[in-house]
Amino acid sequence: MKKLSLLYEGKAKKLYQTAEEAILLVEYKDEATAFNGEKKAQIIGKGHLNNEITSMLFSKLHIAGIRTHFIGKLSQNEQLVKRVSIIPLEVVVRNVVAGSFAKRVGIEEGTTLKKPIVEFYYKNDDLGDPLINGDHIDVLELATKDQVQELKEQALKINEVLRTFFLDLQIRLVDFKLEFGVTKDGEILLADEISPDTCRFWDVETNQKFDKDVFRRDLGNLTDAYTEILNRLGGRIA
Amino acid sequence: MKKLSLLYEGKAKKLYQTAEEAILLVEYKDEATAFNGEKKAQIIGKGHLNNEITSMLFSKLHIAGIRTHFIGKLSQNEQLVKRVSIIPLEVVVRNVVAGSFAKRVGIEEGTTLKKPIVEFYYKNDDLGDPLINGDHIDVLELATKDQVQELKEQALKINEVLRTFFLDLQIRLVDFKLEFGVTKDGEILLADEISPDTCRFWDVETNQKFDKDVFRRDLGNLTDAYTEILNRLGGRIA
Ligand SMILES: Nc1ncnc2c1ncn2[C@@H]1O[C@H](COP(=O)(O)OP(=O)(O)OP(=O)(O)O)[C@@H](O)[C@H]1O
Ligand SMILES: Nc1ncnc2c1ncn2[C@@H]1O[C@H](COP(=O)(O)OP(=O)(O)OP(=O)(O)O)[C@@H](O)[C@H]1O
Ligand SMILES: [Mg+2]
Ligand SMILES: [Mg+2]
Repeated sequence: MKKLSLLYEGKAKKLYQTAEEAILLVEYKDEATAFNGEKKAQIIGKGHLNNEITSMLFSKLHIAGIRTHFIGKLSQNEQLVKRVSIIPLEVVVRNVVAGSFAKRVGIEEGTTLKKPIVEFYYKNDDLGDPLINGDHIDVLELATKDQVQELKEQALKINEVLRTFFLDLQIRLVDFKLEFGVTKDGEILLADEISPDTCRFWDVETNQKFDKDVFRRDLGNLTDAYTEILNRLGGRIA
Repeated sequence: MKKLSLLYEGKAKKLYQTAEEAILLVEYKDEATAFNGEKKAQIIGKGHLNNEITSMLFSKLHIAGIRTHFIGKLSQNEQLVKRVSIIPLEVVVRNVVAGSFAKRVGIEEGTTLKKPIVEFYYKNDDLGDPLINGDHIDVLELATKDQVQELKEQALKINEVLRTFFLDLQIRLVDFKLEFGVTKDGEILLADEISPDTCRFWDVETNQKFDKDVFRRDLGNLTDAYTEILNRLGGRIA
């Protein structure tokens, strides 16, 4: 399948139309951004790494019974997905305190939560993706009450699959962000990506970070970190 | 009943022990503060006004079947209340978009919500009273799930009583903040105050503000605004 018109260029990916109306081609870019685009860098190989990692994780989730947009990897930087209408919510699951959550509630980064928590952020760059609650989602008509319930259940299920999977690889899944979308038929699918750009991955023993915090906080080489994740997943760059 | 030891001095009130273990005396101060204490002023008569207004509103709520800490007004600036252990949540109800909510979700101030929304803020000055969700409350052990449910129901019930009451007085109850506490017997009571310091009151016709925004945004004379509320409530300063 070939790329036709460019539908959207985001910070990390480009979306192209394909000959099939319901199928999109996602191209992963060699670009890292943080702080809502304020910090930027070109990082050769990042798109390839994230495409590989996302593809492996979506396959894993598919096997575990999660319905996703993922169809298949097409090339080093490209994959095919089902077109959805993205629900404008960033669904965040947290197992360990880190980042904005540590600051919000005043608990030290690294503290393991006694159970996972789910947060909804309004996916709106102009507003800085603010945390919102169920009443806000309702008033803004971002999703129905039933959809919010389903997103929360799906997010927790995905967390259980990924958390235990990564633990076997000696990685703590600290937190991650999901996006969901609705197909023409009204089916909710997990969409977007799951990669070191959207998860926090810490080594179980050393707490070494293998995720975008390496870039955000200048902790070392992003390519090395993302490659470590791919290697632990049993993948390799051709 | 007399004031014994000072238990707590806040920005707007002082709490004193009385001879009765379970009863506290609240003294309303002649001080206005905003932006977490950054803006401050001494305003003679404010304590008296807020004590009158809060006393009238808590009596109104008592009649409507809401369980509150309020026992009775003692003097111009003083009232007696039942001692509770305050649940560290600020429960906010909104009928009309204003203040931080307008900025958070990008809706214009003044927009009427199709139904009231309830928000929970973590009552923690050091953290700037952040918005939190049910999972956060759970993890921080600020309240049980049942308590959160009860607080939400109580808040919406209080809103219905006050909203319709103020509408009769040609005032829009835009939003307000509540605090609840637990007695020794585990009963949840509405506590703290309900006054122009903790509510937004707008004239139905002109949208003139009769609340702390007058002070926050330098819109005029605070005493005049608070006196207008007291007058519409049918109260008067002796
Ligand atoms: N299956 C899908 N169908 C339609 N859109 C999708 C699908 N999967 C992901 N998207 C959207 O495609 C875009 C991917 O681009 P990218 O992740 O680079 O965007 P971004 O810079 O993060 O900006 P934003 O996510 O705020 O639009 C996102 O807007 C994402 O919501
Ligand atoms: N019935 C009650 N029993 C015990 N404490 C109460 C009761 N009612 C209110 N309080 C508490 O008394 C204090 C009132 O003081 P004030 O409102 O001036 O505090 P503040 O400056 O707003 O600061 P903060 O509310 O953050 O402590 C508040 O801490 C409030 O939670
Ligand atoms: Mg994105
Ligand atoms: Mg107070």
